[in-house]
Amino acid sequence: MSNTFFQKDIVSVRDFDKQKFETIFQATDKIITMSPNERREIGRGKTLGYLFFEPSTRTRLSFEAAMASIGGTSIGIADASSSSARKGESLGDTVKIMSLYSDVVVLRHQLDGSSRFAAEVSEKPLINAGSGTEEHPTQAILDIYTIRKEKKRIDGLKVGIVGDLKYGRTVYSLLYALGNYKVDVRLISPPALKIRSDSTYEIRKRLAYTETTDLEENISDLDVVYITRIQKERFADIEEYVKVKGSYRIGTDLVKKMKDDAIIMHPLPRLDEISPDLDSTKQAKYFQQAQYGKDTRAALLALILNENGI
Amino acid sequence: MSNTFFQKDIVSVRDFDKQKFETIFQATDKIITMSPNERREIGRGKTLGYLFFEPSTRTRLSFEAAMASIGGTSIGIADASSSSARKGESLGDTVKIMSLYSDVVVLRHQLDGSSRFAAEVSEKPLINAGSGTEEHPTQAILDIYTIRKEKKRIDGLKVGIVGDLKYGRTVYSLLYALGNYKVDVRLISPPALKIRSDSTYEIRKRLAYTETTDLEENISDLDVVYITRIQKERFADIEEYVKVKGSYRIGTDLVKKMKDDAIIMHPLPRLDEISPDLDSTKQAKYFQQAQYGKDTRAALLALILNENGI
Amino acid sequence: MSNTFFQKDIVSVRDFDKQKFETIFQATDKIITMSPNERREIGRGKTLGYLFFEPSTRTRLSFEAAMASIGGTSIGIADASSSSARKGESLGDTVKIMSLYSDVVVLRHQLDGSSRFAAEVSEKPLINAGSGTEEHPTQAILDIYTIRKEKKRIDGLKVGIVGDLKYGRTVYSLLYALGNYKVDVRLISPPALKIRSDSTYEIRKRLAYTETTDLEENISDLDVVYITRIQKERFADIEEYVKVKGSYRIGTDLVKKMKDDAIIMHPLPRLDEISPDLDSTKQAKYFQQAQYGKDTRAALLALILNENGI
Repeated sequence: MSNTFFQKDIVSVRDFDKQKFETIFQATDKIITMSPNERREIGRGKTLGYLFFEPSTRTRLSFEAAMASIGGTSIGIADASSSSARKGESLGDTVKIMSLYSDVVVLRHQLDGSSRFAAEVSEKPLINAGSGTEEHPTQAILDIYTIRKEKKRIDGLKVGIVGDLKYGRTVYSLLYALGNYKVDVRLISPPALKIRSDSTYEIRKRLAYTETTDLEENISDLDVVYITRIQKERFADIEEYVKVKGSYRIGTDLVKKMKDDAIIMHPLPRLDEISPDLDSTKQAKYFQQAQYGKDTRAALLALILNENGI
Repeated sequence: MSNTFFQKDIVSVRDFDKQKFETIFQATDKIITMSPNERREIGRGKTLGYLFFEPSTRTRLSFEAAMASIGGTSIGIADASSSSARKGESLGDTVKIMSLYSDVVVLRHQLDGSSRFAAEVSEKPLINAGSGTEEHPTQAILDIYTIRKEKKRIDGLKVGIVGDLKYGRTVYSLLYALGNYKVDVRLISPPALKIRSDSTYEIRKRLAYTETTDLEENISDLDVVYITRIQKERFADIEEYVKVKGSYRIGTDLVKKMKDDAIIMHPLPRLDEISPDLDSTKQAKYFQQAQYGKDTRAALLALILNENGI
Repeated sequence: MSNTFFQKDIVSVRDFDKQKFETIFQATDKIITMSPNERREIGRGKTLGYLFFEPSTRTRLSFEAAMASIGGTSIGIADASSSSARKGESLGDTVKIMSLYSDVVVLRHQLDGSSRFAAEVSEKPLINAGSGTEEHPTQAILDIYTIRKEKKRIDGLKVGIVGDLKYGRTVYSLLYALGNYKVDVRLISPPALKIRSDSTYEIRKRLAYTETTDLEENISDLDVVYITRIQKERFADIEEYVKVKGSYRIGTDLVKKMKDDAIIMHPLPRLDEISPDLDSTKQAKYFQQAQYGKDTRAALLALILNENGI
């Protein structure tokens, strides 16, 4: 029996249920324990074709590293918006041709719905590596995997999501993913960066959450502190930015207030939301999270490319 | 006995006779039917080094995909003109060093003769991926292969080449290639974009053709309609461009006038010369053509790199 | 017993003694004679991650070619300074994450000490591919290997280093490397481009050398002529540049004055320091040197990645 991901597109985390996550997590657990010799056979002779209309070096390298770790090759366009190939060519044609050149297509695009459209056109399975304002399914997969791996469970946890909740697509994908579990979610942000009101209905259908502006007051309760970058450009008034910034930064003071077995996550890159002093604390899991990003993507590619899974 | 392409340069389609085309076509037919396991052994451990002095994402990715499909690796410079390596370095030195780093060199360069010169300097076989105004041999190979594959023959066909015949090197390479076959060629273009008069002598030595400005009137006769982009920049007078443009575009109206078994080809990327409505018609072969581009290049690389062919 | 390079960083040529050089040279000799089939097993399934904060197409391609020749894959950032990944991210974080994605990290950075710092942060062995003003250890390795291979010995040779001795980090790394051997070194440069006075103490501890401005007068004595580029930008007064330039250029006249078995080396790319007329002379070894660059880097990677060496 073929695995459920074989030759399937990964467009939205909203298409995922608990079982789908579990399939990927088990494949990840297995891939981590495989010898390099076994692993490099999984994708040998296979080609990943990437199209990044929005540059994202981190996500691109994570996919390339994942593909290389299973023995495959990556080709593509790191900055498709300015590429000569794009001079007037439609998104559909660009995706279609890349799908003729490769075994799986990875797309990053700024527009909502781009990925769904591209999946229709593509001759090969398409993975959404970030689209529009809300969708970044492989980031959600790695985030949930990190929680499960480091906390040994997901149900019952108190999860705080901190910082810029308005603009980060990572946050939305994570919320949709958490909707599959019984978690207590606190959204902690300055008022100007609260979650978008046009998304709350959709999120509330899946998940109960509370909103607050105060990180310090909430931190001792949390099992998972998921922190994101607050970007200066988001503020009309620079003084507002300066005032707000410090309150959503974690340093050694705040860590002392955290539970002993709580974990700190961050999609990276970080600026100064997390003091480097914390890197050596046992709560710091953001680098581990990046590592899991490579592993979960390798597992997902393995499932998509191989009928019998791994 | 070693195959005739082993360790040979591919500089000009004018060096090709019917037999050479046939060797590549048979290798392509074979490579298409090979299992991934067999295919990836052909180029394993081999490195393709590319130097693109003119950016061409499409051609570069086609070569990379071809090399990956036979198990090899590609390295190179996608924009050699602006690369730091080029700060004052001669073309000869750049090619020479790339040839020390790789097993086969792929060069794209804006100057006529660049490829012939580079082949002299290179320590490894060199493939011309487009040079000057007339040469793009691997494009001609894939074009002829597409006709042969989709029409089951080449001799006896009526081939219309449509659009900008003055500036596209694709057109010239295709004409030189067609010179090896008994075909009836019609060149269909606005007067300002007729084939260059300084090339007609050379082409006429190989091939009889007629010229016309009217696509609609000719289309019902043709077995192959090869359409190319008409670029705005080519016209001094923008009104002239607007007037002309519509006449060399294929939509559903024109397709109805075509023979039932005629095929539409395009080197891609297309702008609006071909309506997307046509993509699902049985005449549309331009995406298939792109796919054959990868396959013929894989076969060519296999023949160049392996003494015993494939 | 594991080889001394297994999982070790390569930060500075000053950490090298004669024995270390010899280990790499023997591995290089061996890798050159291996069949492609054997070679491509050495690094199969392994990933090299490169971070070039200073663009250097030549060095990057040499590493990629080396990694490909042993069957491995390279991923990375060719222009890390302008990469989106770098928007405010610290060098430490960038290196750390790349080290989670790969098996060995290759770093090029403009700052002195960057490489030592990065090696501390990296989870995987780190190779310095050029840092600050003085360090380029893999260039020194290939330079010394070229001398040993082409002259059959290093001790007892007269080595002239010619051109811009002030700004080229290649020169400093070579001098530190030569400090392990009994060589007679002549530094030949215009007064404005003499070796930096703040480095002479460190160099003199390791090596005796004489300084001169006259290439022609010295050339007949030398066994090795190592010539470097003189860059216009280094001169405040352009007339000074024009005056000086011609004196440190080697043409057929000067070659006639050289010993019959002397060799000419150059780190490349060259501008007009060496006339192309010389390329076919038996003294010209600069292209051979580039080839050895790939081979020595392949050997180094093999030693770092494989406990039992090669």
